[in-house]
Amino acid sequence: MTTLAPRSSHGLFTSGEPVRSWIVSTAKPVRYEVGFTPDVLDPRNPALAGAGVPGDGPAPPRRLLVVESTVDELYGDRLRAYGAARGLDYEIHVLTAHEQLKTMDAVFSVARAMDRFGIARRSEPVVALGGGVLMDVVGLACSLYRRSTPYVRVPTTLIGLVDAGVGAKTGVNFGPHKNRLGTYHPAAQTLLDPRFLATLDRRHLSNGMAEILKIALIKDRELFGLLETHGARLVGEHFQGGRRLSPVVREVLGRAVHGMLEELQGNLWESELERVVDYGHSFSPTLEMRALPELLHGEAVCLDMALTTLIAERRGLVRPKERRRILDVMRGLRLPIWHRLCEPAVLGEALVDTVRHRDGSQRLPLPAGIGDAVFVDDVTPGELADAAGRLKASHTADEEAGHA
Amino acid sequence: MTTLAPRSSHGLFTSGEPVRSWIVSTAKPVRYEVGFTPDVLDPRNPALAGAGVPGDGPAPPRRLLVVESTVDELYGDRLRAYGAARGLDYEIHVLTAHEQLKTMDAVFSVARAMDRFGIARRSEPVVALGGGVLMDVVGLACSLYRRSTPYVRVPTTLIGLVDAGVGAKTGVNFGPHKNRLGTYHPAAQTLLDPRFLATLDRRHLSNGMAEILKIALIKDRELFGLLETHGARLVGEHFQGGRRLSPVVREVLGRAVHGMLEELQGNLWESELERVVDYGHSFSPTLEMRALPELLHGEAVCLDMALTTLIAERRGLVRPKERRRILDVMRGLRLPIWHRLCEPAVLGEALVDTVRHRDGSQRLPLPAGIGDAVFVDDVTPGELADAAGRLKASHTADEEAGHA
Ligand SMILES: NC(=O)c1ccc[n+]([C@@H]2O[C@H](COP(=O)([O-])OP(=O)(O)OC[C@H]3O[C@@H](n4cnc5c(N)ncnc54)[C@H](O)[C@@H]3O)[C@@H](O)[C@H]2O)c1
Ligand SMILES: NC(=O)c1ccc[n+]([C@@H]2O[C@H](COP(=O)([O-])OP(=O)(O)OC[C@H]3O[C@@H](n4cnc5c(N)ncnc54)[C@H](O)[C@@H]3O)[C@@H](O)[C@H]2O)c1
Repeated sequence: MTTLAPRSSHGLFTSGEPVRSWIVSTAKPVRYEVGFTPDVLDPRNPALAGAGVPGDGPAPPRRLLVVESTVDELYGDRLRAYGAARGLDYEIHVLTAHEQLKTMDAVFSVARAMDRFGIARRSEPVVALGGGVLMDVVGLACSLYRRSTPYVRVPTTLIGLVDAGVGAKTGVNFGPHKNRLGTYHPAAQTLLDPRFLATLDRRHLSNGMAEILKIALIKDRELFGLLETHGARLVGEHFQGGRRLSPVVREVLGRAVHGMLEELQGNLWESELERVVDYGHSFSPTLEMRALPELLHGEAVCLDMALTTLIAERRGLVRPKERRRILDVMRGLRLPIWHRLCEPAVLGEALVDTVRHRDGSQRLPLPAGIGDAVFVDDVTPGELADAAGRLKASHTADEEAGHA
Repeated sequence: MTTLAPRSSHGLFTSGEPVRSWIVSTAKPVRYEVGFTPDVLDPRNPALAGAGVPGDGPAPPRRLLVVESTVDELYGDRLRAYGAARGLDYEIHVLTAHEQLKTMDAVFSVARAMDRFGIARRSEPVVALGGGVLMDVVGLACSLYRRSTPYVRVPTTLIGLVDAGVGAKTGVNFGPHKNRLGTYHPAAQTLLDPRFLATLDRRHLSNGMAEILKIALIKDRELFGLLETHGARLVGEHFQGGRRLSPVVREVLGRAVHGMLEELQGNLWESELERVVDYGHSFSPTLEMRALPELLHGEAVCLDMALTTLIAERRGLVRPKERRRILDVMRGLRLPIWHRLCEPAVLGEALVDTVRHRDGSQRLPLPAGIGDAVFVDDVTPGELADAAGRLKASHTADEEAGHA
């Protein structure tokens, strides 16, 4: 896998001197696990205490737990009871995390907690409990601390469960830019427990639904059908449903995670810049940051998906009936389809930054029917203006119908 | 190389529910080039203009150059003339870099310059010209920016040429800790030009010699012989020697780089924590940071090597005659063998942090004769005190002889 090739090249400019050069060629193996583990805080469940460490670690296990402050308020007592019951030698670092606090200062706060805890380099994974922001921040801190320390993710929001908790990306916002600084550093293990959704508010449930809808639109027609039939109800029930999770809940969450991992596993470091999972993420980073804190991540993603659905329709990739079904699902999930920032100038600037991010080309994923996607490089300002104008009209009509 | 293994495990605690989990298993290929390129600023030399981009990039090439301020004073005119002559569309970001400025703030300064430049994600590598600090800072900024942007290193110090410029590590100091935050992100290409050493002061040349001596001690007896015979003269001549680099210069630098790359290539991410190249880096991080700015990096490394040479001698790994030769080479290179911080309490604290860094064990490399090393896990406080005491006595004797 690894070669060191000493080269005695005379091809380069040498001022007449022999030069010497080497090529280092190697590969970094990465392996991580993502799995559903209902009732992760039940003291009978060993998953959390043992997560992220291969085999038996030192006993009693030492763990630094980084817990989002709302999660600590809601679940802190149970978490402490769990730690006591399982004989963990733990400390809890509480961190308030939301999009406006997604900064390097939050990363520093975690790094200082790791310092105080005196964490070992490999055998004491940090455990992150919270939403996407908390996990992205802890992931980045762990990535940087001693150039990488293992960690475990326990997502407590819907975006966390189906998206932020399952991939490799970490990151924080920097200046006006979304996730501008970050790394690829997957958690050694992610424990998915939908029970946390019981306390998540309606808007954040809808927000997470946007990322599920993304997977449905680009690659899973059946998942789209499930959202069409059950989406609004799932949000209403907080994905719960009695003592056991319902088959529909399991199917929707399982498909979303599986679809995401299928796309990530062969392209974990984004060496391929045409990524279907970038669908909804071409214009949304700029919209989300400019509107901050007004728009949530998934809401901005939904605006982007509505816009590109309309562009796709004009290009004959999506039929009018499919466009109507897509927008209806968005409405049913109470996700926005238009926002005042969806205007040509802002969308144009968003595209400029995205083209840089995709190294000089648009590589814009567009839906092709429902459940498939294509990439285009030639979306024009005119198409953006047209799509934005039509969405605004739809939105106005919705408002009037709502107020009528 | 990549597998996504859906598991339908019933082995985990399941509250009676079927659970679903996945294993992502993949590998990240890494390839980079390190080579000697004398006279890198000669407009006839195409190396710098084309470095870091496979094949022909867009023309004219756009480049952001991050240049250390002293290097800019000394070489800025030639660099600008080079850019003009080769038709580069470039901007220069000047950054003052030394150990006390090795912080995340410096990283942010580079990231903001990348923002202003509007750098593309893959095809416009940042070019870093400076010493180890500048390269570590730029490397970290590039590692973080959009989760990795390529860069090119042009080391201008001796430590840069033989060590900081050739590996994969980036980093900054954090709180009281040396390189506590960082990543593994090698430059796509490193251009080694010993001509920059012409302007480097004597102390920084000696400083770089410490890392060359490290390679000699742990794995290259012949290199040790070259240092014994020519070391002091090479420092005196700034590694120059007429229109062409002398064969000795080429041999010493080439062996140092080759030895380092041999050790790194199979262990680029330090999955193996027993690393011979950690020799001299067990106690020195703490010494360097506590003495800041008094001790340079290589000076602290030399103190650590002197200390561990004496420990090795007491253990019968190094003969008294070898110990004398080693300390004589250090003296000849005008490197320190003792410092007031070399006392048992500080050394003990340094070891505690290093044990954490090596995940719970000392994994301490000790020289075995000259040109080989072994690892030990059981160095005692008594051994540290004994070695420090003997070094202090030697140092005092040296001082008295010097003043006599
Ligand atoms: N790394 C990735 O691959 C990836 C993928 C998708 C999204 N993201 C990032 O994730 C972030 C969005 O994540 P998010 O939607 O989880 O937002 P979030 O992390 O801001 O959490 C939303 C809110 O929910 C609260 N909360 C968390 N768990 C709760 C619970 N169980 N009950 C009640 N309240 C709870 C939190 O206090 C927070 O205020 C964005 O920054 C986005 O960029 C990252
Ligand atoms: N990443 C790695 O693998 C690695 C390996 C070894 C050392 N390092 C790091 O490298 C740093 C030490 O590097 P350094 O010794 O280059 O120190 P440095 O970067 O602080 O440079 C030393 C000084 O030399 C000046 N300078 C640079 N080039 C010059 C030139 N050609 N002529 C005159 N002056 C010049 C600079 O202005 C600076 O003040 C430490 O922080 C150490 O941790 C990193």
